[in-house]
Amino acid sequence: MSDSRSNAPVNEEKLDKLAQVAVHTGLGLEAGQDLLITAPLTALPLVRKITEHAYKAGAGLVTTIYSDEEATLARYKHANDDAFDHAADWLYEGMAKAFGSNTARLAISGDNPMMLAEQDPEKVSRANRANSKAYKPAIKKITGFEINWNIVSYPNPKWAKLVFPDLGEDEAIAKLADAIFAASRVDQADPVAAWSQHNADIHARRDWLNQMKFRDLHFQAPGTDLIVGLADNHEWAGGASLAKNGITCNPNIPTEEVFTTPHARRVNGTVRATKPLAHNGSVIENIEMVFKDGVAVEVRASKGENVWNKVLDTDEGGRRLGEVALVPHSSPISQSGVLFYNTLFDENAACHIAMGQCYTECFVDGDKLTEDEVTEKGGNSSLIHIDWMIGSDEMDIDGITQDGERVPVFRKGEWAN
Amino acid sequence: MSDSRSNAPVNEEKLDKLAQVAVHTGLGLEAGQDLLITAPLTALPLVRKITEHAYKAGAGLVTTIYSDEEATLARYKHANDDAFDHAADWLYEGMAKAFGSNTARLAISGDNPMMLAEQDPEKVSRANRANSKAYKPAIKKITGFEINWNIVSYPNPKWAKLVFPDLGEDEAIAKLADAIFAASRVDQADPVAAWSQHNADIHARRDWLNQMKFRDLHFQAPGTDLIVGLADNHEWAGGASLAKNGITCNPNIPTEEVFTTPHARRVNGTVRATKPLAHNGSVIENIEMVFKDGVAVEVRASKGENVWNKVLDTDEGGRRLGEVALVPHSSPISQSGVLFYNTLFDENAACHIAMGQCYTECFVDGDKLTEDEVTEKGGNSSLIHIDWMIGSDEMDIDGITQDGERVPVFRKGEWAN
Repeated sequence: MSDSRSNAPVNEEKLDKLAQVAVHTGLGLEAGQDLLITAPLTALPLVRKITEHAYKAGAGLVTTIYSDEEATLARYKHANDDAFDHAADWLYEGMAKAFGSNTARLAISGDNPMMLAEQDPEKVSRANRANSKAYKPAIKKITGFEINWNIVSYPNPKWAKLVFPDLGEDEAIAKLADAIFAASRVDQADPVAAWSQHNADIHARRDWLNQMKFRDLHFQAPGTDLIVGLADNHEWAGGASLAKNGITCNPNIPTEEVFTTPHARRVNGTVRATKPLAHNGSVIENIEMVFKDGVAVEVRASKGENVWNKVLDTDEGGRRLGEVALVPHSSPISQSGVLFYNTLFDENAACHIAMGQCYTECFVDGDKLTEDEVTEKGGNSSLIHIDWMIGSDEMDIDGITQDGERVPVFRKGEWAN
Repeated sequence: MSDSRSNAPVNEEKLDKLAQVAVHTGLGLEAGQDLLITAPLTALPLVRKITEHAYKAGAGLVTTIYSDEEATLARYKHANDDAFDHAADWLYEGMAKAFGSNTARLAISGDNPMMLAEQDPEKVSRANRANSKAYKPAIKKITGFEINWNIVSYPNPKWAKLVFPDLGEDEAIAKLADAIFAASRVDQADPVAAWSQHNADIHARRDWLNQMKFRDLHFQAPGTDLIVGLADNHEWAGGASLAKNGITCNPNIPTEEVFTTPHARRVNGTVRATKPLAHNGSVIENIEMVFKDGVAVEVRASKGENVWNKVLDTDEGGRRLGEVALVPHSSPISQSGVLFYNTLFDENAACHIAMGQCYTECFVDGDKLTEDEVTEKGGNSSLIHIDWMIGSDEMDIDGITQDGERVPVFRKGEWAN
């Protein structure tokens, strides 16, 4: 265990700034709050920096739950078949309890995206399903913004080699770290100020979309001709959010998107992915789907089709949409040309849609709606929520108003206005 | 993060055997059980081996909660004063819930014993107190043997340098690892068989003491003249134990002791420590105490007296005894001559007593007693349970029967019969 060694290729000063952005912009951590971090063991250097800045900001107790790729793989290698239906219910229930007591939540993303690529898709799917079910009470408090939360990223050696296969390990780690730093705006002189300006830009787009109250969005690009109905009383979100505990947080670092809830029963047409999707240790390539009345009735992929279908079969809502998000092709992540194989980054390089659970806060007065009311307005319900990328510099989007009038929203991958 | 590096000085084959002893002898893990491990980050190589053997034994899910010395110290360095009353209640409640669902429990001991030596004793004491209070529901299920549990050890570099200050770091780690392996009987050809024989020897001593039903034990050695009353209906324990979930486990690896519950209101005389006590990052040296009617009315130590007094002030039961344990001076750990600064080892080198909470299973039909009945019979109640060593090759112990007759139990540090 040597942080000097793990840390070697990563710029120390920028790492410290990333930790500050995570604590101040990402979480908006308040004095006296406890903090719960989840992280892969390989993210130890960033965990330690965040822990330091959290205590400096007045945190009560910082607790980190680590995951270990080798332990995960040992299960696939050695465990009995029935092991794959077990999950750490007790830990997730504990997390839900912590969030119920105003503990802030920080996740460090950075597992090896190919961790489970060689494993039996049936077992992977069962393990994910058991885990999603156990996690549900905690994830509801997170997606429902009961507390301030944030996701940031740290390079894992295997991830770095996947993104930059032609470089040596240390060079790949350094380059991935720099890409993470740039996307997270910590390469700027005052990253916290840069985030304030960026949030103002995103909020202006959000406010325009909320004024327009479109009935549908019509996505057109090579392989895509898709009408996405928007949920009744949907509300657009993006950038900094006010959590219900009164704290303004930036849940994703980086973020470039504005997003809302589609209508789970009013999606029709064909749609083609523009980037590979890395999901729970597998990579799914060249997804194509046909939607009819909200349901993905045809699903194809040139790689990982079996895994993808199993994921969508998690429950009835798995084949319906829970999110639609707009990201201009000129976003810095898109312009970097780096394919991260990590949704936190790749979803901010392109317009995307998500299969599964909707965000209930993407409704007018969403926190006051019952589950039945959310469903009635078109909100989808599922154990999964998986974004996949459909945007490109060839994408046009029209908004269709409640009166059927067409308004240009995107032209050739950029905001039309 | 490189296990090849952390692991380098530690014999790989013996490490694998230690993991097998932990899973099979220590836990007696049954197929289908989940396993909850707690460990310092530095114990990663042993965690991975135990995880592997647990899955081979049929574990459902192995979850490890890691602690990090640097994160702990960051709190003392940077946190506000009121941070030290915070604890991870939610995590401990989750653990209690896991044990309630038959999850087995394995702790890896091996923190730096001096971790907190430089910190404010007031803050250390408050943090420990908050932690003990939060941990209580989970620790009750462990000490009450509701599930099978086990503690094993792995060398931490700073711990190794404390035990072998004259050696280089890698050499010190290798030597401490070998001392752990020898004490844990994994240097033998068939460690699991060696443990079966050792358990039979301990059980013969335990059975004799249970036949004798002594009223008191009288400890005599230089600086010690102490009458320890034994609780009414006390029962001696030691070696393998049958947990209430029907699984036989060896809670401590190593273990050499037989132990029972003293009477919290019938302890009188003077007693002197024969080894330094390492407790939560501090070392307390040359403890001397005077007991009157069960209470330690005088407490002295040549080093750490302030810390020790604060620990004993945790609650009313902190100054009374909760355990008395007999260990012959010829025990392998004693004979190794190594002072481990770690109770798991040092308590198995010498007779000892513990301040604080009693083990309720050290009563006849202990699992059927209410808390009031335990108290009435002389069982002590406290948030702390801290063993300290009083045995040596100069110690004589007499058992005093219910009729007041004296029976030799130890002479010059060895069993008298």
